[in-house]
Amino acid sequence: MSLHQAIQNKIDQKTKPLGSLGLLEDTAAQIARIQNSLSPELRFPRILVFAADHGLARAGVSTYPQEVTFQMVMNFLSGGAAINVFCRTHGLDLKIVDAGVNYDFPPELALINRKMAHGTRNCLLEKAMTTEECQKAMTTGAELVQEAKSQGTNIIGFGEMGIGNSSSAALLMSQYLGLPISECTGRGTGWNDEGLKKKTEILEQVLEKHGRISDPLEILTTFGGFEIAMIAGAMLQAAREKMIILVDGFICTAANLAALKMDPLIRDYCIYCHQSDESGHKKMLEAIGAKALLNMGLRLGEGTGAALAYPLIESAVDFFNKMASFESAGVSEADQGSLE
Amino acid sequence: MSLHQAIQNKIDQKTKPLGSLGLLEDTAAQIARIQNSLSPELRFPRILVFAADHGLARAGVSTYPQEVTFQMVMNFLSGGAAINVFCRTHGLDLKIVDAGVNYDFPPELALINRKMAHGTRNCLLEKAMTTEECQKAMTTGAELVQEAKSQGTNIIGFGEMGIGNSSSAALLMSQYLGLPISECTGRGTGWNDEGLKKKTEILEQVLEKHGRISDPLEILTTFGGFEIAMIAGAMLQAAREKMIILVDGFICTAANLAALKMDPLIRDYCIYCHQSDESGHKKMLEAIGAKALLNMGLRLGEGTGAALAYPLIESAVDFFNKMASFESAGVSEADQGSLE
Repeated sequence: MSLHQAIQNKIDQKTKPLGSLGLLEDTAAQIARIQNSLSPELRFPRILVFAADHGLARAGVSTYPQEVTFQMVMNFLSGGAAINVFCRTHGLDLKIVDAGVNYDFPPELALINRKMAHGTRNCLLEKAMTTEECQKAMTTGAELVQEAKSQGTNIIGFGEMGIGNSSSAALLMSQYLGLPISECTGRGTGWNDEGLKKKTEILEQVLEKHGRISDPLEILTTFGGFEIAMIAGAMLQAAREKMIILVDGFICTAANLAALKMDPLIRDYCIYCHQSDESGHKKMLEAIGAKALLNMGLRLGEGTGAALAYPLIESAVDFFNKMASFESAGVSEADQGSLE
Repeated sequence: MSLHQAIQNKIDQKTKPLGSLGLLEDTAAQIARIQNSLSPELRFPRILVFAADHGLARAGVSTYPQEVTFQMVMNFLSGGAAINVFCRTHGLDLKIVDAGVNYDFPPELALINRKMAHGTRNCLLEKAMTTEECQKAMTTGAELVQEAKSQGTNIIGFGEMGIGNSSSAALLMSQYLGLPISECTGRGTGWNDEGLKKKTEILEQVLEKHGRISDPLEILTTFGGFEIAMIAGAMLQAAREKMIILVDGFICTAANLAALKMDPLIRDYCIYCHQSDESGHKKMLEAIGAKALLNMGLRLGEGTGAALAYPLIESAVDFFNKMASFESAGVSEADQGSLE
């Protein structure tokens, strides 16, 4: 019997109607396959939040001023943001990475300093990064995953903070999926109709400036952010390390698209934690062929969807490992032929 | 400022875009209103699983034989069922109630014995219960909630086990919502197309036998089960005790419909934990005007959806109590007018 069959048999022998745990069954099977084990386990779950600024923010694509990026990093470090609360509630380790925030943080903070620059360049005028910068950011993300792995982590989620990064993600989506920017642009942190229209117009100009690009790395270089490139690199490494990858919302899924274009095999390691209220996210997930665990109208980022979905992933592993089988519990099985 | 306004203000001052925690925000606000507090708390969460048999099961409406009800009760008591696993994982107390199982359990088991009879009567032939039985079952459910309250519980969920009870729930739904039985009947524990057709035909016969009934209690008496009546009574009492009510899937929501028909004011206390894969459940939730927290293709019952949603409810309370405000964290607020 193959491992795949053995996993499905184990699930089907649990004392419940066949398939009745829905997406939890798919999740349990995926984790068992990732770990090549009929007794999978989750060890030292960690969320890495990458923060960076975007040159494009100067074009006014966000409702928030750019300094909110560093202010929110300070909030993460003092434990007051949503991701802090959810990580504490559900027992996840949280690390904050300065990937390129436009602020000089005091060195004594519990911040992982991987600052690439004080924000990317403005992609309305030039490429957001150089190829070297983009590659370095990806390598940095990969190294942070290796570090987590060496500390025992086998399940890792990624979050982001960066004023303007829903614009960067929309541009990446448009390029990677070949969709018009209007289908990729959403309200971000909260634009009204007029703001959304203006944001879309600016992003249209960015795409006109650079044209259609085919190379996945060049797309990331041109439109990405340092935090997005680090996450893409981190996801590629996490798959190489056979870790479970928790994919959060719109921006993290844009990073995931970049990583998938570079190595489609990472798909097997990804759990899509939630479907964001940001309008393009549903379409992104459809393009990937993913069904998200949660769909609660979240649109906060920071990795919050991953942290909120974590207890469901624990539940999946626990039912797989701990539920009784029909045989062990002495429960009769179903019969389709009993109707008279 | 009213409490409602104070609650919304507190949510809107958290360091996140307005509304960006979606359903979690609604949940936090609801709990704060239930507890009439800006510092709500969850205390000693408990799931009560009510098990009972159904005379209608003799007509062959389920894929499983009736003895699975008592076998699953034994499985609950030995800790091997899905609800046991999820309650352990997420820190909920679990109690199992014999509401009317067709089996004589040994007295030494950790089972709360409230057996009404060895199953209901077959509603294909006569009313499932007498009025007195139905009222007694409801009172019993209420007493178990009072007991939980006296032990400190302020959030309570209900689960059920009873071969045939998706048929009972479909009949209740049809009567309470005035819908044809074909829109209320689903595959239950797993009928194929032919089985679903036969199940629907049998339920059609049951409805023809009794006709349209208007009195909510008489509907419950005629088509309900002992476990469903106990849950309905328990929900009514939980609202009187100002407890948070976790509503599980199709069968528990049928009990909720009964309770809502008897006292619409309990609606404010109900959190709808998941939308079941059982086909009628979506329509039930629409009729109630509820948006469920989870939609993961679950169709197991036992209160599993409530246990799985519990960490989300914890997350809602925790963000409300523990997240920093814009002011306390020194974070700038959004501006719709910054686009140039």
